[in-house]
Amino acid sequence: MEELQKAVEAAAASANAAWLLAASALVLFMTPGLAFFYGGMTRAKSVLNMIMMSFGSIAVVSILWVIYGYSLAFDDDAFGGLVGGLGKIGLKGVITDVPGALPETIFSAFQLMFAIITVALISGAIADRAKFGAWMVFAGVWATIVYFPVAHWVFAFDSDTAKGGWIANQLGALDFAGGTAVHINAGSAGLALALVLGKRKGWPKESFKPHNLPLVLLGAGILWFGWFGFNAGSAVAANNLAGVAFINTQVATASALAGWLIVEKIRDKHATTLGAASGAVAGLVAITPACGSVNPVGAVILGVLAGAICALAVGLKYRFGFDDSLDVVGVHLVGGLFGSLIIGLLATETVTGGANGLFYGGGFSQLGKQAIAAFAVLAYSFVLTYIIGFIIDKTMGFRVDEETEIEGIDTGVHAESAYDFVSGSSTRSTIIGGAAPAGINDQSVREAAPAGKE
Amino acid sequence: MEELQKAVEAAAASANAAWLLAASALVLFMTPGLAFFYGGMTRAKSVLNMIMMSFGSIAVVSILWVIYGYSLAFDDDAFGGLVGGLGKIGLKGVITDVPGALPETIFSAFQLMFAIITVALISGAIADRAKFGAWMVFAGVWATIVYFPVAHWVFAFDSDTAKGGWIANQLGALDFAGGTAVHINAGSAGLALALVLGKRKGWPKESFKPHNLPLVLLGAGILWFGWFGFNAGSAVAANNLAGVAFINTQVATASALAGWLIVEKIRDKHATTLGAASGAVAGLVAITPACGSVNPVGAVILGVLAGAICALAVGLKYRFGFDDSLDVVGVHLVGGLFGSLIIGLLATETVTGGANGLFYGGGFSQLGKQAIAAFAVLAYSFVLTYIIGFIIDKTMGFRVDEETEIEGIDTGVHAESAYDFVSGSSTRSTIIGGAAPAGINDQSVREAAPAGKE
Amino acid sequence: MEELQKAVEAAAASANAAWLLAASALVLFMTPGLAFFYGGMTRAKSVLNMIMMSFGSIAVVSILWVIYGYSLAFDDDAFGGLVGGLGKIGLKGVITDVPGALPETIFSAFQLMFAIITVALISGAIADRAKFGAWMVFAGVWATIVYFPVAHWVFAFDSDTAKGGWIANQLGALDFAGGTAVHINAGSAGLALALVLGKRKGWPKESFKPHNLPLVLLGAGILWFGWFGFNAGSAVAANNLAGVAFINTQVATASALAGWLIVEKIRDKHATTLGAASGAVAGLVAITPACGSVNPVGAVILGVLAGAICALAVGLKYRFGFDDSLDVVGVHLVGGLFGSLIIGLLATETVTGGANGLFYGGGFSQLGKQAIAAFAVLAYSFVLTYIIGFIIDKTMGFRVDEETEIEGIDTGVHAESAYDFVSGSSTRSTIIGGAAPAGINDQSVREAAPAGKE
Repeated sequence: MEELQKAVEAAAASANAAWLLAASALVLFMTPGLAFFYGGMTRAKSVLNMIMMSFGSIAVVSILWVIYGYSLAFDDDAFGGLVGGLGKIGLKGVITDVPGALPETIFSAFQLMFAIITVALISGAIADRAKFGAWMVFAGVWATIVYFPVAHWVFAFDSDTAKGGWIANQLGALDFAGGTAVHINAGSAGLALALVLGKRKGWPKESFKPHNLPLVLLGAGILWFGWFGFNAGSAVAANNLAGVAFINTQVATASALAGWLIVEKIRDKHATTLGAASGAVAGLVAITPACGSVNPVGAVILGVLAGAICALAVGLKYRFGFDDSLDVVGVHLVGGLFGSLIIGLLATETVTGGANGLFYGGGFSQLGKQAIAAFAVLAYSFVLTYIIGFIIDKTMGFRVDEETEIEGIDTGVHAESAYDFVSGSSTRSTIIGGAAPAGINDQSVREAAPAGKE
Repeated sequence: MEELQKAVEAAAASANAAWLLAASALVLFMTPGLAFFYGGMTRAKSVLNMIMMSFGSIAVVSILWVIYGYSLAFDDDAFGGLVGGLGKIGLKGVITDVPGALPETIFSAFQLMFAIITVALISGAIADRAKFGAWMVFAGVWATIVYFPVAHWVFAFDSDTAKGGWIANQLGALDFAGGTAVHINAGSAGLALALVLGKRKGWPKESFKPHNLPLVLLGAGILWFGWFGFNAGSAVAANNLAGVAFINTQVATASALAGWLIVEKIRDKHATTLGAASGAVAGLVAITPACGSVNPVGAVILGVLAGAICALAVGLKYRFGFDDSLDVVGVHLVGGLFGSLIIGLLATETVTGGANGLFYGGGFSQLGKQAIAAFAVLAYSFVLTYIIGFIIDKTMGFRVDEETEIEGIDTGVHAESAYDFVSGSSTRSTIIGGAAPAGINDQSVREAAPAGKE
Repeated sequence: MEELQKAVEAAAASANAAWLLAASALVLFMTPGLAFFYGGMTRAKSVLNMIMMSFGSIAVVSILWVIYGYSLAFDDDAFGGLVGGLGKIGLKGVITDVPGALPETIFSAFQLMFAIITVALISGAIADRAKFGAWMVFAGVWATIVYFPVAHWVFAFDSDTAKGGWIANQLGALDFAGGTAVHINAGSAGLALALVLGKRKGWPKESFKPHNLPLVLLGAGILWFGWFGFNAGSAVAANNLAGVAFINTQVATASALAGWLIVEKIRDKHATTLGAASGAVAGLVAITPACGSVNPVGAVILGVLAGAICALAVGLKYRFGFDDSLDVVGVHLVGGLFGSLIIGLLATETVTGGANGLFYGGGFSQLGKQAIAAFAVLAYSFVLTYIIGFIIDKTMGFRVDEETEIEGIDTGVHAESAYDFVSGSSTRSTIIGGAAPAGINDQSVREAAPAGKE
């Protein structure tokens, strides 16, 4: 009988593991998705640098995670509650199998993917002008000083054997999948870094249009797909709560897409693909903290509002004159704040199992908690990021020189060009369906081509 | 003991939930995949509009699904069996956890993804010429009047507590994952809409070649990947039937790819990438209704035939003169019909657990049921779609004006161009690996660039 | 009680099935990913042919798998242990449900995806110059004579009812997910085929730069994502071992990306996106055999070294003068060898449950086994592949004629061009943001356009 009991527990743990393994893969996929979402929005001469900042984040954060990141985020409270302790460095003890429990390796992998994308999100604020080496240093330092502590506050829950972070446990703010730790955090950091690096040459007078909108939509599609792992995976189980988070994610995102397009249609007379992609991401951001607190009708309302608000918020950078190039502030900071706060209104005990928002008779209590959590993360992230960015800028330099910026950061920093649709063709050019542009021949192309792998 | 029993049921439900969560994400991903599959096939001046019709479908259908769509499709029979009732509007009762059962939220999310892609599929028939606003209205009305009822007929099974639709229950036609409700339905609707909107200017005399074949193949790859969720997820469990559906999907698709290429090689002397992508999709379509009825050897036969038949069927539009631009009829209607009918021949009780097709000694009985289901959906969809399309065309207008069509629907309707590989470059153009085309400079490019987000 | 016992076993099997279904879909997705990874690296005039070799592999191998491939790889030892028997041809018995066991259909589908991508990997060695028909014949013959036997040696484990292959059972070499059967096998075959077909015209003097680096990064992203299915799926269960394999895969890949970029930065002064993508793939390759044998800290070490070694190894082809066009040897053969051998040093019983490598007190024993397995597969694959390639070349011819190679294999063999950003535009060209290149008009474009589907 006891053996049977254990077998049942093992089967239940295995079912949860099956979903979390898939969810972890989905969340990893989001970062390449982000690379394309961001990369398509830059001009053709900067797309590779944009993509590299995302892939570079994967490299730096993964390595730090094994060494000490997971420990700082999820070990017992230490340093007065600022961050977790050092008991799990090198993933010590994490790979041990505990029968009947979700393998901690999987939980650790799942959470690693959150750390990676949070760092990568910031890069959208400094498109076209950051030194790649400086970015890599920033990524490592920021993960260490900002992300790991904040993740501890928000994601480390108390248990019989562990003492978690203050936002999740003492304060009791609701953040199902990372509205504070991921989106407010990255958005606030993006704002700070945009201020440190300053505006791009020519901004906002010149046109900085997306060079490849299908690539933007591909990125948005991958993000949407991966976000189901992000949100429904945050139930850390294959259960009804995961299902609620899943359908809320879908309908809020769809609604935000609609909300953004409606604003565009009214304001600009045109609904754009860039708006559809941006609206979808705004919806994904806003439902992230709330997907385990609202019901599907609430998710529709949340989504439409998030899409509309973010569509308006991306104009702020022009008014206030900060070059948040790809709208990390307008989408992630504003969307994250909106999603975190509206939980105080729309949370329903049918879903949360306890807390109610203002509209469900819970009074202002939950709203207050949400506000404290949101602004604590916003302020911590902004101040620390500004300091980190400032120090990097004054020491190794964060921004490329003007000549490189004008010529294009891809050739200047990475010695590559994203596209070459003509080189190697003979008389026929594939790009133009048959005829080569006047004055181009293979020789001139090869001479001007930058040096790459070979 | 009873508690243990419940724990076992919960673990079993959780295992199924783990697969259905992943499957639902996979099916959502199919619609962006479709957007790229279709988008790559258009000319460069229409790709964004094509993508927008898919993303727009996600928005409209998701919102309606929460409000009343799921209820109309899956609540008890109502209105004389035409459609489900209104007992689940606003997803009422759906988010409640029922211990030991697959969470209905997950089932609801899974089925939502089917509704979305069915609507999006239709858009391939009217590439390059539909007003986006009219499409959005069409999407909502069509989902309501055509998809939700047909989904009820096909996908709502009788249970102890619920009374389902006539095709699944009274008739007993086999449609494992939506050959009728999804593919015949969308294909028939595509035909009707192609007739309502009429031919594109210049069709078929001018060339309407795909502008970006890697994008087409990317779309096909995503569709193939996501379709495992579609078909194997339709077992609504992580069991052997899901496994059979999975491997049947794989081998039928591979076989159809081969079948299409063989026809091309014989007919045109060349096997093309467009043929490989189209053949794969034809195989996916044809195996959809049959993946839970045939064995893997049957799936190979089904696949090769489906690929060959659809390769021939895409020529029908030239013979009959309807501009089904991206072959919704040739692939989805013909492939869906073929897959639905061949069940009557190849179904085997080894897989179905009951019904046998003609070749397995079951006589003509199952074939008759399949034909009735197929033609009922075909006729219902065609007539209703034609009426919906006609009314939209006569009231708000469904087709853009001629000038917009010639200039390009992307700039005309969405105020965007898909690609800009030159703007922002200085003397070097990334696109051509070093040298700018004669006569182009930044100023002229910027002046001519359409207005977008900024 | 016994019934409850069975229900528990069924739930446990279902949980594993849930993960393996998702994992199988992930591994299928890797082959389109490979198609884009490879396709982006070719010149624009060869990308479609490159993509077609991957999609063609899916078609051929899937069909053979059902007919006899699965049987040859996983039926009982036959023909003196060279390969499995013929007991499972046509997947005989495989679709039968065995209560309480992982459905064999799922295992069969999962393993099919391995066979597909191994074949597809080889195509990178012969970019731009192979006849498509010859490739398809090669794919079928190679799968039959090389892959199915080697997969039997490595992946067919002994059980109560079955007798497996010699590497897995008699020798006891560790290969968790296919360092030998997949990567050494494909890499060695790539070398042989590159020698049979010879160098491309102009190689290595002319530039053969990637024409579309975002496409390369997309491919790498998809490969990374899918590889979680490949490696963590190879636990054939949703358990702690799968979790260990998962996190090892992530951190080794991230570390290899870093290792490759460090070599580039030191050697070339520039970290490139092509390097990031290649480093990631090198890490994925090297961790493949080892992900179930090392701990996460070991995976970081393995990854950094793999990235650095492969970054150096891709230069070998220039030194030795073989045109392994897309570095199948430098990445898959070298990475596969490195990953297979280093298990002899880094394996730890904490993970393997038994074997220890040299660094964990296990002596040279495991290293010896690893070396035997690696070189047996290397030699078998090289010799057989050379013979198969040679015979195809002497009979039907493996290489396109010189004119086709210069003009471009896409138009010559597939009658298609990958991109057409201009055709169909009126006065405005979308590609250049507003202005058409001098001397281009629609008529000339259409006349020169190759014939395709229509």
